[in-house]
Amino acid sequence: ARPRVGYFYTGQTPFTLLSEQIQKMEVRNYQSLPVVAKESSSAYEAVCTMFLEDVGSLFVVNDQGLLSGVLSRKDLLRTAIGSQDMNHVPISVIMSRMPNITFCRSDDAVIDVAELLISREIDALPVVRTKGDGLEVIGRMTKTNITKAFVELARGAAE
Amino acid sequence: ARPRVGYFYTGQTPFTLLSEQIQKMEVRNYQSLPVVAKESSSAYEAVCTMFLEDVGSLFVVNDQGLLSGVLSRKDLLRTAIGSQDMNHVPISVIMSRMPNITFCRSDDAVIDVAELLISREIDALPVVRTKGDGLEVIGRMTKTNITKAFVELARGAAE
Repeated sequence: ARPRVGYFYTGQTPFTLLSEQIQKMEVRNYQSLPVVAKESSSAYEAVCTMFLEDVGSLFVVNDQGLLSGVLSRKDLLRTAIGSQDMNHVPISVIMSRMPNITFCRSDDAVIDVAELLISREIDALPVVRTKGDGLEVIGRMTKTNITKAFVELARGAAE
Repeated sequence: ARPRVGYFYTGQTPFTLLSEQIQKMEVRNYQSLPVVAKESSSAYEAVCTMFLEDVGSLFVVNDQGLLSGVLSRKDLLRTAIGSQDMNHVPISVIMSRMPNITFCRSDDAVIDVAELLISREIDALPVVRTKGDGLEVIGRMTKTNITKAFVELARGAAE
């Protein structure tokens, strides 16, 4: 397309354009696939899943497949240097548990998720949708996804 | 300041402005303080340092205080579920080692660091400066710093 160069009427400052551009970036276009584990899984199994799937957080689901917790590499490392046997600790006792879980939805703005990741000092948010009286996990948003969004914004702008 | 609204001549498209704005963001304004460990530290000590300092990566320095490696939570978790005693494994045997370390300098562009973090699939880059025939660690850039930069860019734009 022909670049719009020179005099043009926008009614906006350049920064308003940037702000609108960023606000239009929705979670659905940047989320990754979630990696889930059952509450009854052992800490050892969880570490293996993390390495196999190459993720830093697992989303934990109950028997109905609904979100019940989030398990981080940090939770597992804390358990690993403790005195308990990783094979006999169920992840349900070391995970962060609902309702103390921060989550987002696929039509949320990426920038709002970025602010949550920073303000709550967390690594990953489950992307959820309502199912019955609980939440079904449909995606994953991490600082990696935010970093990719930032790179894409810069590249798109540079084209 | 009065907003520039309406007809204005820029000689640039809005996206060029955004691109320039992003390119001007330098590492020095977004880096965190580095957390370093000695090569002779044990894996157990390294885990404790990570928890105390609340970081996901340690930069390892040699006797001259120069960068010799990077140690991640993932390296420690792998060791923790192995058969070795965390108290008797020096971090020098489990860390990523120079010259296989990706680093950056304080006058690099944040966007270039973001691209490195994504393309090399790493969590943290040491910010370094040349010292003698080695590199001194003066900072830390992670996906958290990139996420903060993204939020700041959006907020600045929204003002």
